[in-house]
Amino acid sequence: MPGPHCTKDIQKNISCSTSVLLPQNSHTTVTQLHELQPLMANPVLKSEHEKSQGEKTDAAPPAGPTTLQRARARFLKGVSYFSGDMKVFGKWMEKQFFLLQLLDWVLRGAAQVMFVNNPLSGLIIFGGLILQNYWWALNGFVGTLFATISALILRQSRGAIAAGLYGYNGILVGLLMAVFSNAGDWYWWLLLPNIFMSMMCPIVSSALASINSRWDLPVFTLPFNILVCLHMVATGHFNHHFPQVLIQPRSELPNITWADIDVAKLFRSVPVGIGQVYGCDNPWTGGIFIISLFISSPITCAHAVLGSAVGMVSGLALSAPFESIYFGLWGYNCVLACIAIGGMFYALTWQVHLLALTCAFFCAYLGSAIANLMSTFGLPACTWPFCLSAITFLLITTETKKIFKLPLAKVNYPEKNLGFYWKLKKQEKMEKQEKERKEREEQQKAVEEANILNEKEQLKLEFERMEEGKLMSDASEGQNEDTDIEDFVSEVGQQVTEEEETTKNEDTVANYV
Amino acid sequence: MPGPHCTKDIQKNISCSTSVLLPQNSHTTVTQLHELQPLMANPVLKSEHEKSQGEKTDAAPPAGPTTLQRARARFLKGVSYFSGDMKVFGKWMEKQFFLLQLLDWVLRGAAQVMFVNNPLSGLIIFGGLILQNYWWALNGFVGTLFATISALILRQSRGAIAAGLYGYNGILVGLLMAVFSNAGDWYWWLLLPNIFMSMMCPIVSSALASINSRWDLPVFTLPFNILVCLHMVATGHFNHHFPQVLIQPRSELPNITWADIDVAKLFRSVPVGIGQVYGCDNPWTGGIFIISLFISSPITCAHAVLGSAVGMVSGLALSAPFESIYFGLWGYNCVLACIAIGGMFYALTWQVHLLALTCAFFCAYLGSAIANLMSTFGLPACTWPFCLSAITFLLITTETKKIFKLPLAKVNYPEKNLGFYWKLKKQEKMEKQEKERKEREEQQKAVEEANILNEKEQLKLEFERMEEGKLMSDASEGQNEDTDIEDFVSEVGQQVTEEEETTKNEDTVANYV
Amino acid sequence: MPGPHCTKDIQKNISCSTSVLLPQNSHTTVTQLHELQPLMANPVLKSEHEKSQGEKTDAAPPAGPTTLQRARARFLKGVSYFSGDMKVFGKWMEKQFFLLQLLDWVLRGAAQVMFVNNPLSGLIIFGGLILQNYWWALNGFVGTLFATISALILRQSRGAIAAGLYGYNGILVGLLMAVFSNAGDWYWWLLLPNIFMSMMCPIVSSALASINSRWDLPVFTLPFNILVCLHMVATGHFNHHFPQVLIQPRSELPNITWADIDVAKLFRSVPVGIGQVYGCDNPWTGGIFIISLFISSPITCAHAVLGSAVGMVSGLALSAPFESIYFGLWGYNCVLACIAIGGMFYALTWQVHLLALTCAFFCAYLGSAIANLMSTFGLPACTWPFCLSAITFLLITTETKKIFKLPLAKVNYPEKNLGFYWKLKKQEKMEKQEKERKEREEQQKAVEEANILNEKEQLKLEFERMEEGKLMSDASEGQNEDTDIEDFVSEVGQQVTEEEETTKNEDTVANYV
Repeated sequence: MPGPHCTKDIQKNISCSTSVLLPQNSHTTVTQLHELQPLMANPVLKSEHEKSQGEKTDAAPPAGPTTLQRARARFLKGVSYFSGDMKVFGKWMEKQFFLLQLLDWVLRGAAQVMFVNNPLSGLIIFGGLILQNYWWALNGFVGTLFATISALILRQSRGAIAAGLYGYNGILVGLLMAVFSNAGDWYWWLLLPNIFMSMMCPIVSSALASINSRWDLPVFTLPFNILVCLHMVATGHFNHHFPQVLIQPRSELPNITWADIDVAKLFRSVPVGIGQVYGCDNPWTGGIFIISLFISSPITCAHAVLGSAVGMVSGLALSAPFESIYFGLWGYNCVLACIAIGGMFYALTWQVHLLALTCAFFCAYLGSAIANLMSTFGLPACTWPFCLSAITFLLITTETKKIFKLPLAKVNYPEKNLGFYWKLKKQEKMEKQEKERKEREEQQKAVEEANILNEKEQLKLEFERMEEGKLMSDASEGQNEDTDIEDFVSEVGQQVTEEEETTKNEDTVANYV
Repeated sequence: MPGPHCTKDIQKNISCSTSVLLPQNSHTTVTQLHELQPLMANPVLKSEHEKSQGEKTDAAPPAGPTTLQRARARFLKGVSYFSGDMKVFGKWMEKQFFLLQLLDWVLRGAAQVMFVNNPLSGLIIFGGLILQNYWWALNGFVGTLFATISALILRQSRGAIAAGLYGYNGILVGLLMAVFSNAGDWYWWLLLPNIFMSMMCPIVSSALASINSRWDLPVFTLPFNILVCLHMVATGHFNHHFPQVLIQPRSELPNITWADIDVAKLFRSVPVGIGQVYGCDNPWTGGIFIISLFISSPITCAHAVLGSAVGMVSGLALSAPFESIYFGLWGYNCVLACIAIGGMFYALTWQVHLLALTCAFFCAYLGSAIANLMSTFGLPACTWPFCLSAITFLLITTETKKIFKLPLAKVNYPEKNLGFYWKLKKQEKMEKQEKERKEREEQQKAVEEANILNEKEQLKLEFERMEEGKLMSDASEGQNEDTDIEDFVSEVGQQVTEEEETTKNEDTVANYV
Repeated sequence: MPGPHCTKDIQKNISCSTSVLLPQNSHTTVTQLHELQPLMANPVLKSEHEKSQGEKTDAAPPAGPTTLQRARARFLKGVSYFSGDMKVFGKWMEKQFFLLQLLDWVLRGAAQVMFVNNPLSGLIIFGGLILQNYWWALNGFVGTLFATISALILRQSRGAIAAGLYGYNGILVGLLMAVFSNAGDWYWWLLLPNIFMSMMCPIVSSALASINSRWDLPVFTLPFNILVCLHMVATGHFNHHFPQVLIQPRSELPNITWADIDVAKLFRSVPVGIGQVYGCDNPWTGGIFIISLFISSPITCAHAVLGSAVGMVSGLALSAPFESIYFGLWGYNCVLACIAIGGMFYALTWQVHLLALTCAFFCAYLGSAIANLMSTFGLPACTWPFCLSAITFLLITTETKKIFKLPLAKVNYPEKNLGFYWKLKKQEKMEKQEKERKEREEQQKAVEEANILNEKEQLKLEFERMEEGKLMSDASEGQNEDTDIEDFVSEVGQQVTEEEETTKNEDTVANYV
């Protein structure tokens, strides 16, 4: 399945690369192991898997695993059905009824906000949204649905649609338009601009992708940011049809007393920050979102929590009003930025992990800046800070190989990306070794050849010298001036004369014939 | 002549492509028909024209048209002299006095605001401007003139200058600086920044073209937007030399009573919206502009009217104050966006027509948003909404072939673009047919060859079998175990033995020689 | 050394191109002359230098210079050690202790704000800063230092770091954060965001370079602009930890009486404007900066002064409050823009000089606009106007060859750029001459060959005619119908017959042999 937030037709590449990797007869079992392997990092299974890859003809499981190992393998196989990007499920879905497929795409779209391509996660997320607010959840669903339908009408890449890449902006547009509407819940007219804006999502996505693809960048949630800000500022607070909540710039020093700080609320702000990615302030909803992330990818989940924590700390550092920190407004951008840099678009190494934390901190700073800027226009910060900071950190070029940016077409979930990175490194290493081996062999060969040539040359030289010596000795017998050479010649001369005689004999034979 | 809003040197390509199409001896007549043909969509003329193109040696008009047809042809020939891009006139102009040429360029520049490359339209537009306000018209003229002169000084592409592509930003800069000046009419000092900003137009155009050309996008009216906003915000309302009108953000709910709506004014807002492209609120001026559009290209004209209507409806939908709708502020961006998408940069199909209407609606939304945003800085929306929405819709990529974006160098007026698109489609179809025909032929050939080979193979096989049979029969005469083969061999054996005998005889002859 | 504001690894190209130019044995002396030559424009030395380049084997100084010439050469050699980009010093530094190297990079970084790659200039600039304010100077130093260190950590191009290209944004970030802080001097906590933002500089620089390099554009001071605005708007005036000075948009007509104008202050605004590049309002500091510019490159220095003057005049033209003109706020952007266009990124010709002044005027206009825009957010204009105007003027494409934009990898200081441009022009000229010469020769050759061929052809023709004539005369002796041909044949016949006879004889000889 294609990676998150990239709207190019990459389906083929991925599936192709997978099919190259694996022997076709053992496709299902090995694929599942392969996908699961980076998730659990089980060395035994890994080595098995690698062996099966290395031999390629022996797809059968190695003889004699213990009962425990077998149980574990069975468990992992079970887990693989609903973790990662649920590829098996996706393939099974391809043959189902269209409306069922559409539901799959909508659920994947809901989860793709967090870069997760997993319908189960999407389902859980919708559960969290319903826990928060029915009306919001409905708007979110309508948004995702119509964004996906619009992408189908506009004939966008089917692979990208199936991965939910046209839905995630739709759910955010739907949700946030409901969140920021001042007309109260169940104001049904809101569905009209909701549907229009959702259907604009694929257009804006496609246009942005045309630009961003020049730098191999995804579009992130930029279409959502553009469209929600567009709707909010086009109508504004003072509007009869679609009034927005009033947002005003800060005009006086906030009343902050450090003694009043509530540590419990501060800790609660971490899940709230994750919930705020979907505009939800309920900590339970945030907790549910954490679970949905963990199902698909533990690395993503860890970075989400870390990002939210970094955001909270940044808020304290910049002396933000406590209320805004408790409300998770400092967290959600950092969550997304930390996920994006920490393993999603870069292969996770320690350097990249540090870079992700830096990016989260930068994103928090930027978040405060953009929130202040946009409050001038009565606008919320949306996820502009995340988009801008992630794009900045993805555009970095460096001479170190430890910060490896994956080509956009190869982006999957962090565990799979890591596998891709390791494979690449291994290949490089092997190629290097192969090269070195060949070079060594060639050197040896060259040395041997040089030796042979040298010997021939020496023989030739000696022969010539000998002949000269002979002539000299013939011409001036008794005048043994340089006996050293004479000795040397006589020393090697015998064999040569023997050779001469044989050749002479051959010549004679040839003449007689 | 090069297409609108693209400042590359494309003159050569276009004229070249035309000259390839048509036999040189019948250039004038056929070219005119060719240009006129999409305008009037006369099937008789079209077929004639196509025939003349198809045969290419027979440039003479087909024998025996009726008197009516002849009269029509003569009429269309007359129309062709001042419709479309007035190519004949442009060519004639090339040999005239420089100042006359400059006037042609200025007039074309005035019309290029609406993507029309036609000096007559430009003249009519100037008429409309004079009807609106003498001072504004003067400023517009000065702007166009100095922008064109500046492009000449900067040695920009002569073809683009001659198409008025460096003038249209100038006229808008000149006009709008006069419109938004708070110093009143006939404040002569205003001509100074007017001339400076007009002369900056080609610089900004050239710079933007360097960026936009990477995505094969035109610069639209971005230079005008940038420069007028620059001037207005640099001086502002509170300035001694060049004060601007005061524009302030909305700070309370507008007083809208739906009973007060004036339907006549609402309908009048459609031409007013077209007039507002040049900053004019006089409906008659708008009407004159509609006529000037119709002269050059009916498709453009229709989309202009449609765009203005869409803008008006959007204004009502977003509960805008009626005054701003009557004043045409909701229309002018939609007019431009609808023209740009509806046939100018895309080839007009039904899908593209719907896309143009969608773009107009999106543009109206965006217009409201940008107007609100920029009022914070005391700025009008200018044509930013049009530029941004048109660029967005031109950046879309899709898998359907019905939405065909013309390469920028091939952009002309919609009717000609359509001709280009049809020609391309026809070519593709013919190539496909040709390919299929060839494939079929090759298949047949292959089949025939296979047949021949098969026959040969069979003969060979039979011969071998026969020989084997012979040997067997020689070795064991009377032991007729498998009589079937025996029969078969005897069946085909005779000719072979005959052949054998002849070859034997030949061999004997060879021996005796 | 690499050119200013371009962060690509261009070290190799430059040093390579230099080494190609010059014979290695006379490297030091000739290089110095070479570098110095455009600085002083001494025709005698120039011709000598060119000769030495032209001959390339004779690196020795030409025989018999006068005492005055020798003294001048020695003086220039001395000057060359600390003017330009101090290449010799830079090379010597490469072998020094790391901390000393770092100091060199920091000093070069301080000067690179003005596009000067010279540690001595950097030292003088730090002197000027200390004269202005100790605390600011400290912040500037910390900023440069940490920006350079961060670039080292991020493994950016070593050549670019050594040229100070990662430091100049750092010094501006450090300085301006101190300048705009409302917490007063010696508020030590400020160093924390200072260090963080400085360390973000290379990240933002690298990201921007990825984008700008597509158009071969430098990043200028965009990272500084982005990061300082980020910090200021993230904290704002109403912040407990890092309050910023209060900047508010103009809301009433400024009180300007032209009688009150102070001409002395107006003139003083020129050095103040140069000082404001580093946020300093002390005219002596500005004067020191002028000296530091003159040391490295007189052309840069001249354009800096001109730019500041243009800015001052623009301020008066747009009726700015006198205080802001005196304070140098109209100058500093024009200074940078005028330097950038006037010889730094374009090769200096008269046309480019005029373009630089136009750019300075445009930049002043833009400066006013951006200052008004950003005051809405409580932000200063920073150097956004410079960046945007310089980028606009660098993106221009034109058909004239007098406006030559240097490839970014070849950018040095203006004098060296000019040398590069002259060399290129000379090469082109020589190539053209060579081509013309060859063409002439070939034409001559072709003419000669044609002549020879013609002669041969004629002879052949004549021979054939003669033969025909012979046959005819043999066949019909006495029937002399066309005597003209007969005569002609007889005229040229003799030699041919002679030739025939000789060949016959030869044939006979051949037979006898």
